[in-house]
Amino acid sequence: MKQISGGICAAKGFTASGVHCGIRKNKTKKDLALIFSEKKATAACVYTTNLVKGAPITVTKNNVADGYAQAVICNSGNANTCNANGIEIAEEMCSLIAKELGISATDIIVASTGVIGQTLDIAPIAEGIPALVKELKADSDDAAAAIMTTDTVEKCVSYSFEIGGKECKIGGIAKGSGMIHPNMATMLVFVTTDCAISQQMLQKALSEDVKSSFNMVSVDGDTSTNDMVSVMANGLAGNEEIVAEGADFDEFCKALNAVTTHLCRMIAGDGEGATKLLECIVDGADSKETAVTVSKSVICSSLFKAAMFGADANWGRVLCAIGYSGADVDVNKIDVSFKSAAGQIDVCKNGAGIDFSEEIAKEVLTEKEIQVLISLNSGDFGATAWGCDLTYDYVKINGDYRT
Amino acid sequence: MKQISGGICAAKGFTASGVHCGIRKNKTKKDLALIFSEKKATAACVYTTNLVKGAPITVTKNNVADGYAQAVICNSGNANTCNANGIEIAEEMCSLIAKELGISATDIIVASTGVIGQTLDIAPIAEGIPALVKELKADSDDAAAAIMTTDTVEKCVSYSFEIGGKECKIGGIAKGSGMIHPNMATMLVFVTTDCAISQQMLQKALSEDVKSSFNMVSVDGDTSTNDMVSVMANGLAGNEEIVAEGADFDEFCKALNAVTTHLCRMIAGDGEGATKLLECIVDGADSKETAVTVSKSVICSSLFKAAMFGADANWGRVLCAIGYSGADVDVNKIDVSFKSAAGQIDVCKNGAGIDFSEEIAKEVLTEKEIQVLISLNSGDFGATAWGCDLTYDYVKINGDYRT
Repeated sequence: MKQISGGICAAKGFTASGVHCGIRKNKTKKDLALIFSEKKATAACVYTTNLVKGAPITVTKNNVADGYAQAVICNSGNANTCNANGIEIAEEMCSLIAKELGISATDIIVASTGVIGQTLDIAPIAEGIPALVKELKADSDDAAAAIMTTDTVEKCVSYSFEIGGKECKIGGIAKGSGMIHPNMATMLVFVTTDCAISQQMLQKALSEDVKSSFNMVSVDGDTSTNDMVSVMANGLAGNEEIVAEGADFDEFCKALNAVTTHLCRMIAGDGEGATKLLECIVDGADSKETAVTVSKSVICSSLFKAAMFGADANWGRVLCAIGYSGADVDVNKIDVSFKSAAGQIDVCKNGAGIDFSEEIAKEVLTEKEIQVLISLNSGDFGATAWGCDLTYDYVKINGDYRT
Repeated sequence: MKQISGGICAAKGFTASGVHCGIRKNKTKKDLALIFSEKKATAACVYTTNLVKGAPITVTKNNVADGYAQAVICNSGNANTCNANGIEIAEEMCSLIAKELGISATDIIVASTGVIGQTLDIAPIAEGIPALVKELKADSDDAAAAIMTTDTVEKCVSYSFEIGGKECKIGGIAKGSGMIHPNMATMLVFVTTDCAISQQMLQKALSEDVKSSFNMVSVDGDTSTNDMVSVMANGLAGNEEIVAEGADFDEFCKALNAVTTHLCRMIAGDGEGATKLLECIVDGADSKETAVTVSKSVICSSLFKAAMFGADANWGRVLCAIGYSGADVDVNKIDVSFKSAAGQIDVCKNGAGIDFSEEIAKEVLTEKEIQVLISLNSGDFGATAWGCDLTYDYVKINGDYRT
């Protein structure tokens, strides 16, 4: 397996595009994205567990109920959520793009992201669709740009891998960067692959993967109403279709996880206002659940996040967040270290502080990517969670998001 | 029942003091507080549920196991938590103050608040204790000041009420203002009363009260390691001792709740960096639990809190926070309004947005105390939770708390 260029267009048969259609007032900001597979693909999705769901979630669920999809349409600038006519608008988006592409409206994955509770006008979308289809090409960038909201960078990655002697490719794009605290689903992520895999195995791979990838990311503790991850697999790589567990399935899962983990790190690192990517690595837990609970509790702590912004080795906040996580841990066995490109510094041993150089700690914590290493010393399970620091800019961005 | 002056010294037989003993470097900041009852009092406490507990919590639990206490000693500037010798230091604090007061060391409630994981030196405390005892007087202010950390205002309140024709008094002091997300306990709150009430009934009253008072406050979602609420009742009001439920007990609970609710509002309003007190009032829930879950979820949402800082009527974030709260609600029945001294504005009806004047909304949300009113329209239960907005100053305060 190796990282390659191409993003969602790395896999055979996929093209993509992004245009400004007018949902956003800023004309330099693309707001409508399309991903198209020349061949109908098996499709798997996971969705937000928020009871308040965007209308596109409901429509997509219906459309992929048969296990197939051929295109993704996604707008930014408006979440099409908590609107009286949301379902109608989402269905209309599917009909319009399907007609232009000459495919069935029930083969469309539809998604929206942006402000909640404002009516989404179909007019600019209808107007933009012909250009959107015309612009389709083997280039990820415009689509990746068009799904961005407060994101500061496009999030795109791809890998190649081999199944039964055939080269397969897989790639994805994602948008963060606020209202990020996925629970059995995630922000918006669209993955494409030319690997041949049955819908059942594709869903199995995705549902398992999100547990250790997107569900381990938190920017601000707020689970979005419009979270969705979709994977389309069109089979054009020509490998023998994966229909059961085994070496081929494992290889596919590994490639999928490379894409999703890469996107997780990008999403967390580009969290709203973030200056640092935080990675909390827990080991020595007595169960997987304990490791997950502890790592997520630390990554979600506002106090810990603010301390990391200030490059302050305030490990007491790490202990505090472990203590209230709900996990049953032996506090007196916990070790904590901070690590980055500048080195590693141990700050807590057996649940109590140890002497350390504040100067070196500052150096370690001034880097852009910080690992907090937590050893529970009570077993063999581990977990990794991703987040970001809490900064002035988070407050600024969210103090006047709508205006 | 009426509000009176006097704080923790309003009730007969209680005196208090606060000094700078040298735990903090800033000599103008008091860091050691004492509350003393001339008569041994029945005592009830609730404590943090954080598994990482400050050493003073453990020592206090032992000391009040017999149901009695006569004094509270509390330092700020150091939490005496996650230290190898924490218990020893907390016990030493009890011995020293007990000796100076001429009472038993097991009648002391001891508390600490400040940085976690730094050894607490007993020397300045030992040195400060004689002055602390000498300064005892019928004045709440110095003690209220000495327990403050990042608090910007002293938190103090008292009420008088009548039991069987006898006037009783009750008062309390509290410290916030970060790491505030109590769970079956709270930040530091010390309540005194001269009402005669058995230990069993006092504990019952307190344990019940915190469910609707301190457990409904969140500043930042971080449950502290040192949370504690204690009540001492010395019986000097001369009423017939309350030993069972009934009208007298109800009257006492009402007075206790007046004190605790007042302190809750003060703590939330003085949350770290806060510019606004947020009060989330839920009604029409199908159970008390649903009402509690919904109100706390909204008050804890970073996105909602940042929107309130920006006076942005972004009600979609309220819906979002209800949706991921875990409560089983019918989204399509939810109404949301914002209310303050400037008026009320309805923004969401039946789970969807309604037209409203952004100008009036801005006026409503520019006030210092904001109510978000949520009607679930599914039953007769309600709950109120308190919090504050998320501001630049929260980040600033917590980016370099230790330095």
